[in-house]
Amino acid sequence: MMKALVSVLLVLVAVSSTFGKYTPRTGKRIPKTLSRGWGDQLIWAQTYEEGLYWSRSRNKPLMVIFHLEDCPHSQALKKVFSEDNEIQKTLDEDFVVLNLVYETTDKHLSPDGQYVPRIIFVDPTMTVRADITGRYANRMYAYEPSDIKYLISNMQKAKKLLKSEL
Amino acid sequence: MMKALVSVLLVLVAVSSTFGKYTPRTGKRIPKTLSRGWGDQLIWAQTYEEGLYWSRSRNKPLMVIFHLEDCPHSQALKKVFSEDNEIQKTLDEDFVVLNLVYETTDKHLSPDGQYVPRIIFVDPTMTVRADITGRYANRMYAYEPSDIKYLISNMQKAKKLLKSEL
Repeated sequence: MMKALVSVLLVLVAVSSTFGKYTPRTGKRIPKTLSRGWGDQLIWAQTYEEGLYWSRSRNKPLMVIFHLEDCPHSQALKKVFSEDNEIQKTLDEDFVVLNLVYETTDKHLSPDGQYVPRIIFVDPTMTVRADITGRYANRMYAYEPSDIKYLISNMQKAKKLLKSEL
Repeated sequence: MMKALVSVLLVLVAVSSTFGKYTPRTGKRIPKTLSRGWGDQLIWAQTYEEGLYWSRSRNKPLMVIFHLEDCPHSQALKKVFSEDNEIQKTLDEDFVVLNLVYETTDKHLSPDGQYVPRIIFVDPTMTVRADITGRYANRMYAYEPSDIKYLISNMQKAKKLLKSEL
């Protein structure tokens, strides 16, 4: 008898907690992650301000990725980027990472214009490393999927901090 | 024989894909969501720029929540806020939402200083609604868990857009 009562109670609790939670009319959604597919195991900053703060306090360079979720060039780079172990490991251990789908108001982050995909490095001194460029003269901070080794060598450049070069 | 071969191949694929993926030394992490616990079913903007853009283009007011993950006042408000069906439904249907753990450079978002938790409404005309305040004279944009009904009435105020009042 007692057992049956407990069962009924449990069912009631389960039903009420399901009914109690807000569900959109279009059905339950899967919450978006800060990684947006660029590396689920990395700890992503949410905003540029947050990225700068972490970069300064941890003395690690910041990588900012500008992309768009429905841009095929961004998607192609993201696939190679997120599956490359060397990139993911190096970013996790030596970098602060941020990916943005909207431009910031800071013009230093678009040295030669606003386009995607675009990867900008920022030194812990809060200096944008406009000197670390990709392989294309017309879009100096763009990378193709085939440029992944070039990107890795640029990450090594960014790891040589400006302060230690003085 | 064929079946056994297929099985071996499947195992090999499974093993290699596990070995192939980057895992931090401290173990696998659960990716952070943009909601940070303030409502997993809501579609959160990532940055203030993104929130302003959505607000303007959808003609819906923007709610900005400033909080800290290890602040007990933020946590207490978050619990009540995320479990309140009326708030979640209204936000989902009539608002653009953004939660931030770092301050922005825009001083309009801290009319009486930077503290958490703090809730600021922004009109689709990109005007900060400094007139929509909570119940505390010393921290005008703070809310306690017991102020949830007051917050709901403030959301109704924010829904009366500035343009339509002219």
